[in-house]
Amino acid sequence: MTAAARSRDEFEDEGRSARKRRLIREAAATAFLTNGYLGTSMDEIAALAHVSKQTVYKHFADKERLFSEIVTATVDEIANPNTDEVLNLADTGDLERDLRRFARRQLRAVMEPRLLQLRRLVIGEAGRFPQLGRLFYDRGPGRTIDALETMFERLASRDALELENPRLAAAHFNWLVMSIPLNQAMLLGEDQPATPAELDRYADAGVRAFLAAYRKR
Amino acid sequence: MTAAARSRDEFEDEGRSARKRRLIREAAATAFLTNGYLGTSMDEIAALAHVSKQTVYKHFADKERLFSEIVTATVDEIANPNTDEVLNLADTGDLERDLRRFARRQLRAVMEPRLLQLRRLVIGEAGRFPQLGRLFYDRGPGRTIDALETMFERLASRDALELENPRLAAAHFNWLVMSIPLNQAMLLGEDQPATPAELDRYADAGVRAFLAAYRKR
Repeated sequence: MTAAARSRDEFEDEGRSARKRRLIREAAATAFLTNGYLGTSMDEIAALAHVSKQTVYKHFADKERLFSEIVTATVDEIANPNTDEVLNLADTGDLERDLRRFARRQLRAVMEPRLLQLRRLVIGEAGRFPQLGRLFYDRGPGRTIDALETMFERLASRDALELENPRLAAAHFNWLVMSIPLNQAMLLGEDQPATPAELDRYADAGVRAFLAAYRKR
Repeated sequence: MTAAARSRDEFEDEGRSARKRRLIREAAATAFLTNGYLGTSMDEIAALAHVSKQTVYKHFADKERLFSEIVTATVDEIANPNTDEVLNLADTGDLERDLRRFARRQLRAVMEPRLLQLRRLVIGEAGRFPQLGRLFYDRGPGRTIDALETMFERLASRDALELENPRLAAAHFNWLVMSIPLNQAMLLGEDQPATPAELDRYADAGVRAFLAAYRKR
């Protein structure tokens, strides 16, 4: 076998393996969201993904590892703000417009049905499996608030904002934008509790309240 | 039997019946919080309360009715703000002090371990049983925001606050005070994620940001 052929084979093997991994992850996500974390077994996941139980275990050492990867992949794919983009907001010439743009996009992402379902599941299991909730928190709101904190610190040093505690201001911004529709979605169990236009209004109102509180006068 | 004796008997019967009802409710709360809503049967509740299954059904027509009563009793007992007290805030001579007092008390109540556990359970089941989440929302944040809305409307008419949309301002106040510790508690699965002193600082910071945004200048 030539080196080129070998590397093509390896590439195809890797492609097949990655595809299978993704298939298992998607089947597992469906099973978890339908039957809960405790109510789902590796057997059921294997059956749903049309692979053997051995194949599931080859890719994921145990149920917790598999669930962790679903949380990471879903949160990263949907709601992970581009950190560079957030930091660039510190150099904006039109703070209100750019914060509003960011808030609208971020709120729509957080309100994606799949992410709402996963968040409900993680919260429901957080008493028994706090490490799953910790992962969701760190990849989700924790990371967004980190990026906002750095950005707000820079805006304060430019005298665009007035704040003693950038981390607190970042958390206030985040929850002013998210809380109303997110808490309703969590408790009311609706996956599309608000239209995109309503979400935009919540985002704009959150930005307006934030700037009224924190803009340098 | 004299009328007095009969009425004493009825009183005692009612006392016994109310006690039994409370016992069943407490046993059920323990079972639900340990095994989830789906994972709990009326049989287990009867065994845990040391009563017959018939007695459970005599008091509660079905599992959903029993769970609803737990939500109502827990939310009412712990986190129901005294509506008159909230409305009296509209006549305050020291708005910041009185809002802070209210916010501190309300945040400590919402962060009671039993209420946090129940909230996680309700959120975890909200996709399957939205009526349970609706009940929690209406008795909890919904009712608090209703009372705040009326109070803020009066404060605006006294020129103490400046707001176009009292309901939005009420929700902003509520979540500025609650969101940081509450979201951490939900996701991290901790029942005492913050000390009372830390909670007071979150409450004070929320009130400060709210007044900076909404106080009439």
